[in-house]
Amino acid sequence: MVCIVSGLPGLAFVLLLASFVSSRPVQRDLAADRESHFLQRAKLIDEETKLRIGSTTTLTPPESTLDYIMMREKRLIMDESRTNRSAYLPAYSFHQSKAYIENTTIYKIIKRMPKGAALHLHDLAITSLNWVVKNVTYRDNVYMYYDDKGFVRLGAFDTPPADNPWKLVKSQRAAAADQDIFDEDIRKSISMLSNDPLVTYPTISLVWDRFNLYFGQVIGLLFNADIMRDYYRQALVEFKEDNVQYIELRGQLRGFSELNGTTHDAEFGADLYKDVTDTFVRENPDFFGAKIIMSGLRYKPQTDILDEVKSAMALRQKYPNFFAGYDLVGQEDPNYPLSYYIDALLYPENTLPYFFHAAETKWQETEVDYNLVDAILLNTTRVGHGYGLAKHPKMSSLMKERNIAVEVNPISNQLLGLVNDLRNHPMAVLMADGFPVVISSDDPATWEAAPLSHDFFMAFMDLSGRDTGLGFLKQLALNSIEYSAMSSDEKIQAIALWQTKWDTFIREVIAELTSGQIVGR
Amino acid sequence: MVCIVSGLPGLAFVLLLASFVSSRPVQRDLAADRESHFLQRAKLIDEETKLRIGSTTTLTPPESTLDYIMMREKRLIMDESRTNRSAYLPAYSFHQSKAYIENTTIYKIIKRMPKGAALHLHDLAITSLNWVVKNVTYRDNVYMYYDDKGFVRLGAFDTPPADNPWKLVKSQRAAAADQDIFDEDIRKSISMLSNDPLVTYPTISLVWDRFNLYFGQVIGLLFNADIMRDYYRQALVEFKEDNVQYIELRGQLRGFSELNGTTHDAEFGADLYKDVTDTFVRENPDFFGAKIIMSGLRYKPQTDILDEVKSAMALRQKYPNFFAGYDLVGQEDPNYPLSYYIDALLYPENTLPYFFHAAETKWQETEVDYNLVDAILLNTTRVGHGYGLAKHPKMSSLMKERNIAVEVNPISNQLLGLVNDLRNHPMAVLMADGFPVVISSDDPATWEAAPLSHDFFMAFMDLSGRDTGLGFLKQLALNSIEYSAMSSDEKIQAIALWQTKWDTFIREVIAELTSGQIVGR
Repeated sequence: MVCIVSGLPGLAFVLLLASFVSSRPVQRDLAADRESHFLQRAKLIDEETKLRIGSTTTLTPPESTLDYIMMREKRLIMDESRTNRSAYLPAYSFHQSKAYIENTTIYKIIKRMPKGAALHLHDLAITSLNWVVKNVTYRDNVYMYYDDKGFVRLGAFDTPPADNPWKLVKSQRAAAADQDIFDEDIRKSISMLSNDPLVTYPTISLVWDRFNLYFGQVIGLLFNADIMRDYYRQALVEFKEDNVQYIELRGQLRGFSELNGTTHDAEFGADLYKDVTDTFVRENPDFFGAKIIMSGLRYKPQTDILDEVKSAMALRQKYPNFFAGYDLVGQEDPNYPLSYYIDALLYPENTLPYFFHAAETKWQETEVDYNLVDAILLNTTRVGHGYGLAKHPKMSSLMKERNIAVEVNPISNQLLGLVNDLRNHPMAVLMADGFPVVISSDDPATWEAAPLSHDFFMAFMDLSGRDTGLGFLKQLALNSIEYSAMSSDEKIQAIALWQTKWDTFIREVIAELTSGQIVGR
Repeated sequence: MVCIVSGLPGLAFVLLLASFVSSRPVQRDLAADRESHFLQRAKLIDEETKLRIGSTTTLTPPESTLDYIMMREKRLIMDESRTNRSAYLPAYSFHQSKAYIENTTIYKIIKRMPKGAALHLHDLAITSLNWVVKNVTYRDNVYMYYDDKGFVRLGAFDTPPADNPWKLVKSQRAAAADQDIFDEDIRKSISMLSNDPLVTYPTISLVWDRFNLYFGQVIGLLFNADIMRDYYRQALVEFKEDNVQYIELRGQLRGFSELNGTTHDAEFGADLYKDVTDTFVRENPDFFGAKIIMSGLRYKPQTDILDEVKSAMALRQKYPNFFAGYDLVGQEDPNYPLSYYIDALLYPENTLPYFFHAAETKWQETEVDYNLVDAILLNTTRVGHGYGLAKHPKMSSLMKERNIAVEVNPISNQLLGLVNDLRNHPMAVLMADGFPVVISSDDPATWEAAPLSHDFFMAFMDLSGRDTGLGFLKQLALNSIEYSAMSSDEKIQAIALWQTKWDTFIREVIAELTSGQIVGR
């Protein structure tokens, strides 16, 4: 490189540079500066790490072994993508990542892990579509038609209504050229996953339309009391298989019907869930149970919500150990805020626990966002989603102080249009600061996710960092019991049950990893 | 609805409900409860609002008038999208939103607004492509060719090198069927915007390849000293036209060349920028000026960086009022972290101000993320991007305590693949809690954004809430001076200059809005 220094300024510069260099000690103690820098660096990082969820959770020596293995796998995937410039699939749309995820060692470990409880679930979207197709649609009295947009609609009746071209599924299947393809077509037509919602439905409202359509497709089946009894039982089977020990379920409760059209009230619904739960727990003593959260629809008239609140108060009195409380559900953005129903919600004077959805939105400082404030003032036990919470420093510090956990549903938030790359999920910010969080799956059947394992995978790979390992997952499992609606006694029992399963899991999974029985990606 | 209550449990439930209702006072004071709820609600929201950037910035009566108008426009756009279920274009990819934005009343106001300073800019991407094509490529000695992927490459030489099929632009243009189309093809071939990077380049690395390609396309022109002199002068013209009063510019400084291939050192580069700035300020006394931040490339050997640091120390001594300090630039994820260069960066023993890029990443707890820690320990004056900062509660509280501002570049972060919907930008979380932030535009020419107005628009519509108005923008303008590298005296002068312009802006823009001279969307 030819260097041109022209005129006096340049000369002055050279002289200045020379004088500057010569005025320094020839040998400075750079080694000491460097050591001091890296000591302070380590101290700061350590202080911060201690704030993160799970960072202070103690690990036994075998747990540390598994921690080492999981961190190694996590770092491999992250570093490969970061430094080798390849796509980071764990943060991609679940549509694109599902198959990849299921083949990773980390997923295989998480699947086996006793995850405690799933606390944010909706009763019409918790059992695999595969079971619905292969079991429910094989029954007598189940009818179907494809609507004008080509989506299948299902219903169970003695006699189908004349409003649509209902046909018996049995006869349609018998007439089909290939019964497997016939079944597969039904499943694909119900699943949101068959059309990647991030691409197919570019606005959040279009995604919600598709999401609501799912409920329209299956409600004619699932509001049948007999079918729901089996559907819910099968949900418990599948959650147990996915190594979940306990669930809390939101449901409308009223409206279950018989084939002849007779419909039932909310007490019937509560009884239905309670009977199935009790029987299941009797038959499966290593499953801890379930509680129900009655859920109104946030577009109903105020008088309806007051009626529901009163009904919920009575059910809470009748089933104090099973009926956990009340919530309002449905897309928050275009519908009524909690403040619209304030008379109804104040009515119980703190005798009815609430579990409010709040701020499932990207709209900062809107009435949807401020559902958080009403939820806090109404002494909500937990907050569902709380996607907007991180932008509310006052509310988040209040909630942390009062130990109000947020139910985070990563895949739901992604597929319902809140966030594409899950590393941008705003709850990751609060989780890095030890905010009380539980991970759940919202409506896993809708997008064919596992009952809880895929969401736990996302939490591990996207909502926490490269140095965050098994302690994080262990703490999330413990949180799920701690922040549940269980009584103190129930929590002690549930933790004992979970701990036994956890110890077995640690022992077995390490043995299997060591012997090569678990091999991923 | 037929309600079936069967057997004793149902009967008990009815009795229980009756007794429950009758045990309540017939008339409870719901009105008082409601009033108390809404009072507490307003108090909490008010306490929180006070934390947000700009919420405590005082507004004069005319400013309050403009605040009212801007909030009305903002709420119209937000509410229309939220409740009427339409797309929210201000948070979409800039590629899709640019034309829409420019037609809004809010943008037209922001464009006119004196925005203070732009503190995060790179010297090779600050002047409109239109000017490059219509001015620079019309000069003698400017050559071009289209590479094997169809991207135009430009260079200025006495004699073009034989390495590529260089042809004189002048002759090519003369031979073209349509000169306007010829020019337009060059512009489109350089602009990242002509291919929406969010769609065309699905991974962050592919986006960065395209981004780096931009520099490859123009560097052969812009490293020519004569062209750079005019290019930088034109940048100042365009920033001034966009109502920016001052800039801080990152540049390599060394490597500027003559047509014959002679190249220059960093002092030459510093002189070039200083001369142009001084002349421009003399000719435009209502433009406050510029300072330069020397920038090394974060993939260079450690010895190169040490040489640059020494050179930067000398330049800082030579031009204490113009040469602000040193930074390392280039994609952080795959390149060396600050800690790799620690010996070089410790060398000045706090005599050289730093302005480090840090955590321009979604990778939590990686060495890229921890560039934040090194930056803080090296007493960085500001942090460039700090995209990952919100997930570092310790680092963010330290930075807030030490008043280290983050330079946020919304459109850059979006187009370089960090976040699609800008409402998910993590700095919105810290901004809601009063974190020191300045808004800048990084490389606006690359994606054909205005010097600063589009980024200010994004900050207003996406990084703040529905109830956040003019105070926020006023505070961002004030922040840009407060957190600049100006001396206290310079800041006082710069604020005085800005205030005069601001008062005129308020007066004029209200008059124009009132008389219908500004009409948007």
